[in-house]
Amino acid sequence: MKTTEQQETLSGASLAPPWRHRHILDLDDFSRQEIELVFKTTDAMKEILSREIKRVPTLRGKTIITLFYEPSTRTRVSFELAAKNLGADVASLIASASSVVKGESLIDTVSALQALGADIIVMRHPQSGAPYLVAQHLGVSVINAGDGWHAHPTQALLDLYTIQQRIGRVEGLKVVIIGDIMHSRVARSNIWGLTLMGAEVVLCGPPTLLPIGLDSEAALPRVLIETNLDHAIREADVVMPLRLQLERQKRGLIPSIREYAELYQLNGRRLKMAKPSALVLHPGPMNEGVEIAPDVAHGAQSVIEQQVTNGVAVRMALLYILARGGK
Amino acid sequence: MKTTEQQETLSGASLAPPWRHRHILDLDDFSRQEIELVFKTTDAMKEILSREIKRVPTLRGKTIITLFYEPSTRTRVSFELAAKNLGADVASLIASASSVVKGESLIDTVSALQALGADIIVMRHPQSGAPYLVAQHLGVSVINAGDGWHAHPTQALLDLYTIQQRIGRVEGLKVVIIGDIMHSRVARSNIWGLTLMGAEVVLCGPPTLLPIGLDSEAALPRVLIETNLDHAIREADVVMPLRLQLERQKRGLIPSIREYAELYQLNGRRLKMAKPSALVLHPGPMNEGVEIAPDVAHGAQSVIEQQVTNGVAVRMALLYILARGGK
Amino acid sequence: MKTTEQQETLSGASLAPPWRHRHILDLDDFSRQEIELVFKTTDAMKEILSREIKRVPTLRGKTIITLFYEPSTRTRVSFELAAKNLGADVASLIASASSVVKGESLIDTVSALQALGADIIVMRHPQSGAPYLVAQHLGVSVINAGDGWHAHPTQALLDLYTIQQRIGRVEGLKVVIIGDIMHSRVARSNIWGLTLMGAEVVLCGPPTLLPIGLDSEAALPRVLIETNLDHAIREADVVMPLRLQLERQKRGLIPSIREYAELYQLNGRRLKMAKPSALVLHPGPMNEGVEIAPDVAHGAQSVIEQQVTNGVAVRMALLYILARGGK
Repeated sequence: MKTTEQQETLSGASLAPPWRHRHILDLDDFSRQEIELVFKTTDAMKEILSREIKRVPTLRGKTIITLFYEPSTRTRVSFELAAKNLGADVASLIASASSVVKGESLIDTVSALQALGADIIVMRHPQSGAPYLVAQHLGVSVINAGDGWHAHPTQALLDLYTIQQRIGRVEGLKVVIIGDIMHSRVARSNIWGLTLMGAEVVLCGPPTLLPIGLDSEAALPRVLIETNLDHAIREADVVMPLRLQLERQKRGLIPSIREYAELYQLNGRRLKMAKPSALVLHPGPMNEGVEIAPDVAHGAQSVIEQQVTNGVAVRMALLYILARGGK
Repeated sequence: MKTTEQQETLSGASLAPPWRHRHILDLDDFSRQEIELVFKTTDAMKEILSREIKRVPTLRGKTIITLFYEPSTRTRVSFELAAKNLGADVASLIASASSVVKGESLIDTVSALQALGADIIVMRHPQSGAPYLVAQHLGVSVINAGDGWHAHPTQALLDLYTIQQRIGRVEGLKVVIIGDIMHSRVARSNIWGLTLMGAEVVLCGPPTLLPIGLDSEAALPRVLIETNLDHAIREADVVMPLRLQLERQKRGLIPSIREYAELYQLNGRRLKMAKPSALVLHPGPMNEGVEIAPDVAHGAQSVIEQQVTNGVAVRMALLYILARGGK
Repeated sequence: MKTTEQQETLSGASLAPPWRHRHILDLDDFSRQEIELVFKTTDAMKEILSREIKRVPTLRGKTIITLFYEPSTRTRVSFELAAKNLGADVASLIASASSVVKGESLIDTVSALQALGADIIVMRHPQSGAPYLVAQHLGVSVINAGDGWHAHPTQALLDLYTIQQRIGRVEGLKVVIIGDIMHSRVARSNIWGLTLMGAEVVLCGPPTLLPIGLDSEAALPRVLIETNLDHAIREADVVMPLRLQLERQKRGLIPSIREYAELYQLNGRRLKMAKPSALVLHPGPMNEGVEIAPDVAHGAQSVIEQQVTNGVAVRMALLYILARGGK
């Protein structure tokens, strides 16, 4: 164990003035300095992950509880491993519809987890706003790991970090998000984060899957809407197709998977219309052959695996910042 | 790490003569001295939980396996965190009806867990007596985390500890348990523990949900039965409404949820009839608005959160005592 | 902590020339020296498990992810405890049919786990060959914890180790495997391992459950087929009844459970026809009263519990060998 050295490494990311949050609910109330602090702390975490023994005892004795009301693979495991890498204890609750205790309110459930000793609750919930409700009523720190169609801030932060890491900046980039924008918490959080950091965001998808009235919103001056992907993608620095929930077809929002793929799949031909250095991101899991062609998903411009790897480091950074609470 | 100091702290709770159990099955074979030993050890555990790093390596290298044949949130997590706080390894098996291996006996399942290296099995089972069966046939220590309608001794111990902590004694108190006594393992274990420690217990509920013949039992001289809550609650020191299983209505045991709430809900008006200092306990999860009014559940007399917090410390104490096995 | 001493103990099992594998997929490409190296390393692990604190920090900072597409109790817990005993972090994914993300390929799922930081993936999958597919395409080490009817190499290794430990050798022994050979990955891996180590294997079961054409295969000169158990078991050194999947009856492969038991159950009468010192092994979970009589399952010749206990040590050995990767 190289505890002293590790502490020194981490002390590089000092939690000085900028940080104000006790929760991570969405990026709409983040400042650029706060996001830059997350980036800087993530750099320190990546250094830890590059070691032979990728583990520090920084959060020893802290308890992180993950509370997932929707199934998840990579987000839940990403948080679990992030917590373990920092020496925290983790308990996981998967509250699928069948096992949730009937009659108990969300507040009472989380209140019990807090009373059990949780320092941070990582929660995913199908209802937009659920983590806000918890954060308002209880003292425990809450990280939103996805709430309904609303927000998924840690995904947006890892996307931003990956762009920053690969291109060296976010400012001034053209980022195209493709697909089912309306139902996407990933898109929504990315819009906040990308525009805050100075990127131009182009949302592209079938009209039925685009957010209504977003283009007229004064608050989002850097966001454009374009239904034609061949137009949208031109000179893009970053292209981010979203997972298409295949059940959208049944609900009549798209005519057919085949037609959706024809018009909106990110394939090799379309990617050539972006800048030659353009990055391909995807929040995962992918429907290969639907929103993304296999050769693009696994091609030279894809940074999809780096997103996943960076996700652990970003979540370590967030757990670290929250657990230390400005100290 | 302050290992030496921690060991000293724990050595305060010496496992001298009184302790006889290799299992925690129910409180009916506990002595007062044994319960007092649990209290004293719990005090030491609470001191650990109050530290900045709430973790000691006392049970390092010990393996605790939780085996739950019924869904549970707080009890399972409570045991898991208790074990981790003491440095033990935990593995969790949730054996819902669908995933239980067909054809294998309970004995063979637990026997395999023992052969895998379990030092203590924490088990919940829908059949009364299941943990006894395991304890009889196998060498591993068993903690009953709830068996059918029969017993839930760790819940009763945390209830007793919470009363002792808040009022300073259990002896001579009037404790009213309200609701579905007949189907409640929490009530049953509490009756044993409370009467052993010298409390007077009043059971109050609709006649269809009261245990048959209990009032005539010579073995329980300190237990009274009263179907009128307004009478039962007078001058109570502790009031404990039980969770009403809402499906009882379908089985015809209560006329309706509304009528049940009218007659047996612990609300503000009724609580005023107890002593002004009376404590409100609830084993959780609550049906707020059914057996307990929201303002009482979250009011000044409620110690429901403290119960949950004390539960972790009580379970740490029990794991510690069993794992050290009288050494 | 006795770190130095522990390292010394482990250094006894040096990973010198013989070892060639980056994955554990099946035993068909193992050499005798490799299996002997597993045995030797397992001996070292059993020494660790015999200590008061049965835990070493050898794999600290390593991440093991278990990915089970079929339900399992003992195999999954066995790997989890093995990993924890060596100080590794473990994350568990149980991907039952309902929770698997639709549309994502197995390669993409495992690729994400690798990107999350997994050093070793322990996977069980209903399709034969699935772990090979993963091993071919990704860089992470894969341990096959059972794939379809194909292979279950860690079960076979623990069976071999248990025989070696109890009898002192595998060479020259007569091992009878009884039951549903055709659908048994346990049988298949054991056939490879046993014949490699010089045992003679007799496969015994109803003709509908025997592998077609196996007896004519030149590659397996030490394997015999015999449908009459009373003949097969004579002078056996080891008898291994397999779990009968009770649904085989519905598919018409056996006339009835009762008739199967009459012809193929390992009972006391039949066991007497084997050598007096013969060992009884069973991969678990057992259908007592079907493929094995209760008195045999729990009798003096049964080593079924030792199999489970040895399984943890064998899996510790395999994790250790793979994680150290020939260093």
